[in-house]
Amino acid sequence: MHVFTVKQLLSTSGMNQEVTISGWVRTFRSNRFIALNDGSCLSSIQCVVDYENLDEEVLKKINTGAALKISGVLTASQGRGQAVEIQVNKLEVLGEADPDKYPIQPKKHSLEFLREKAHLRVRTNTFSAVMRISSALAFAIHQYFRNEGFFNMHAPLITGSDAEGAGEMFRVSTLDAKNPPLNEEGEVDFKEDFFGKEAHLTVSGQLEAETYAMGLGKVYTFGPTFRAENSNTSRHLAEFWMIEPEMAFYDLDGNMDLAEDFSQSIIRYVLENCEEDLLFLEKRLLDEEKTKPQNERSEMSLIEKLRFVVDNQFKRVSYTEAVDILRNSKPNKKKKFAFPIDEWGADLQSEHERYLVEKHFKCPVILFDYPANIKAFYMRLNDDEKTVRAMDVLFPGIGEIIGGSQREERLDVLQEKIKAVGIDEEELWWYLDLRRFGTAVHSGFGLGFERMLMFVTGMGNIRDAIPYPRFPQNAEF
Amino acid sequence: MHVFTVKQLLSTSGMNQEVTISGWVRTFRSNRFIALNDGSCLSSIQCVVDYENLDEEVLKKINTGAALKISGVLTASQGRGQAVEIQVNKLEVLGEADPDKYPIQPKKHSLEFLREKAHLRVRTNTFSAVMRISSALAFAIHQYFRNEGFFNMHAPLITGSDAEGAGEMFRVSTLDAKNPPLNEEGEVDFKEDFFGKEAHLTVSGQLEAETYAMGLGKVYTFGPTFRAENSNTSRHLAEFWMIEPEMAFYDLDGNMDLAEDFSQSIIRYVLENCEEDLLFLEKRLLDEEKTKPQNERSEMSLIEKLRFVVDNQFKRVSYTEAVDILRNSKPNKKKKFAFPIDEWGADLQSEHERYLVEKHFKCPVILFDYPANIKAFYMRLNDDEKTVRAMDVLFPGIGEIIGGSQREERLDVLQEKIKAVGIDEEELWWYLDLRRFGTAVHSGFGLGFERMLMFVTGMGNIRDAIPYPRFPQNAEF
Repeated sequence: MHVFTVKQLLSTSGMNQEVTISGWVRTFRSNRFIALNDGSCLSSIQCVVDYENLDEEVLKKINTGAALKISGVLTASQGRGQAVEIQVNKLEVLGEADPDKYPIQPKKHSLEFLREKAHLRVRTNTFSAVMRISSALAFAIHQYFRNEGFFNMHAPLITGSDAEGAGEMFRVSTLDAKNPPLNEEGEVDFKEDFFGKEAHLTVSGQLEAETYAMGLGKVYTFGPTFRAENSNTSRHLAEFWMIEPEMAFYDLDGNMDLAEDFSQSIIRYVLENCEEDLLFLEKRLLDEEKTKPQNERSEMSLIEKLRFVVDNQFKRVSYTEAVDILRNSKPNKKKKFAFPIDEWGADLQSEHERYLVEKHFKCPVILFDYPANIKAFYMRLNDDEKTVRAMDVLFPGIGEIIGGSQREERLDVLQEKIKAVGIDEEELWWYLDLRRFGTAVHSGFGLGFERMLMFVTGMGNIRDAIPYPRFPQNAEF
Repeated sequence: MHVFTVKQLLSTSGMNQEVTISGWVRTFRSNRFIALNDGSCLSSIQCVVDYENLDEEVLKKINTGAALKISGVLTASQGRGQAVEIQVNKLEVLGEADPDKYPIQPKKHSLEFLREKAHLRVRTNTFSAVMRISSALAFAIHQYFRNEGFFNMHAPLITGSDAEGAGEMFRVSTLDAKNPPLNEEGEVDFKEDFFGKEAHLTVSGQLEAETYAMGLGKVYTFGPTFRAENSNTSRHLAEFWMIEPEMAFYDLDGNMDLAEDFSQSIIRYVLENCEEDLLFLEKRLLDEEKTKPQNERSEMSLIEKLRFVVDNQFKRVSYTEAVDILRNSKPNKKKKFAFPIDEWGADLQSEHERYLVEKHFKCPVILFDYPANIKAFYMRLNDDEKTVRAMDVLFPGIGEIIGGSQREERLDVLQEKIKAVGIDEEELWWYLDLRRFGTAVHSGFGLGFERMLMFVTGMGNIRDAIPYPRFPQNAEF
């Protein structure tokens, strides 16, 4: 007999067939109606038991969280709320869940409570919906790039170069933690370490992706990156996944075209493939917002926010124009910004980015040509020698979601910038080789996967957008 | 004007159109024929320059490795070896490649030499073919699981539990390497470390995948894992990518069905989508084997080996049967095995696995029900109390490629096994919770991505199956 999933049964038209299904009890009411869920979709299937003919010992074990194997006949449901149900002929309890001990009971649990039970929280509607969408989003990303002729590459996680300077790094070592070997100068002798030198966890795969773009043309990475920063916020993780496309022969315009098409495409995929989960999360968010004062509620519902990105062309504005707009804006003049915008050169904050998107342009925005001194060394210097060919894509509710740039392809300019930021050129010999041999215009950008998942699911804390979040004082599970 | 890729141009039927293309010079002969490659496919496109009308200074810069932007008319080619070519009207040298300095010249380079130039090796035919196939293989894996109703999950890389015991681990720390803080007992005080406890890089995402399978039903991970083992072999990396599916309600038979269908499907995808690259690598392998003595050459060509897996049903044999076959085999009796098979309980070596696949059964083999004491603690104990529900999938040429098992779902049995291997039960409280609440039969397996890529591409050293290999004394780039 074929074993079905709940998702398959709920969409079948083959009534009155004998089916077998396994899953976990979500609820059991009136000693008669089991809502059985197997994770394949948000909905449970209703299984109707004939309790008068069921062993009382078995009946007692049908508690929330118990694993059951059920055989029965699939029929059109008499009740409201579901089209089909199973008239149970055979019921086997695979694994019990003692209601006095099982923490995931059918009631509202706080997200904080569930974070402590990260190994069980995927059994709730909220987290199963988030994680099904996570999977769809990841697939949409791979499919998009494959259709566009990109090659996926695995950038290294452990790196012997600490030259990028995008953030604090974790050291990776097998040396004795208490008594490391010392060299003649009395310093730790990393020559004795596993890799023969000091090694760290990467903060970005971009530089390695550039080496591959200069051979394969269009590549992307999709892998974990790390930050050893002591940031206990709802937007930072010590370990998170990044998507970093890198394209030879793309200038900043091509990069902006790609970022817009890419972000719209992957969100459209989720809209088209995750309707049930999105509707559930939208309702969750609405309920949550009802507890907030009116002026803190978002103006758009979850799905409206996704459609706002998918249906609007992104407005492209230079940093200089944006600063003009912000300087003359009402909130700036009325001193409503926490960080007032006085002059050209200021780094923009989320409040400014959101103002541009939500109030001024009323569409997603791409800012470009940022001041050189607030951006990374590898970004291409403009002829004005003040700005670089950087871009940030700004979304409603969160501000920056994608950051990218055209890369500096001129050897001499790059060498000067490396010197200026104090990096040893020897560290980046291989990166500079790309400018020595067959250099060309090229560009790329980075997207934090969990940030995008927060946007798509409406979850407010990044610790709820990854199965097992890592942050200061926490590497549990 | 639309910018094309070489792959698009070589498959177009739109002759006599004006096209623009960028790429790198592979060869330039007779001052007339440029083979231009952009990584989109193995083939280069022939660009014909009218050297009499080309500035001599420009002509001198058309060297192997130089980046060019070319405009011209796409025409049917008069020469042999290509259907179309570009009659160049305009040629711009974007980046030169000094032939006296550029290491990747149009001649045969050893794989060892290219490993030292890992940032440039993707510009060769061999590595570009391997990496295009790597990308196709990765996509095939995601697509297969999505079509089969699996959800992708991101297992954590940094872990506070070192309980799995699958291998030596790397420590991840931000403590001062030379003078770490000590506690009252005089030991390193990891409470002061970033995560508040000693943390390591994971050796497997399986245990976390199990927690998700028990909520979402069918999940898989596809991410990096780490081994701090001092293995300087052609088959081991310190950092490699693993695919680990985990399925609730699957017993070992279901697990074997999945492993067979999965491995055949992803290889079939590569056969159907990477023909040009496979034919090139097949020829490379044939040429390489010509330098070996007859008895060391493989009996099958690369593509024959892939078809061997795709076209044959996998033979399922218990470990006990396999040991009987091996004990009575010719090579065992003639003492040809480096590790003779004397009795039940021996761990099988690659030579034994290959004998079963290549000589005895002449098809891929799945061995199951291994002795408990040579397998991991989490595998389900059989009623004989001597064997566990483990399985290994064996391929020609390499032996084991996939290892998996049905997991021990009984709390008491698992607790006893954890005790027996000397792990502190407290370390695995969350893993044991899966057996406390709604436990059920479940199974999964693991596949090393680079091992599969070696099999599919015929590369003999795993360091050539990942962009930037990490191994003892090496974390360059």
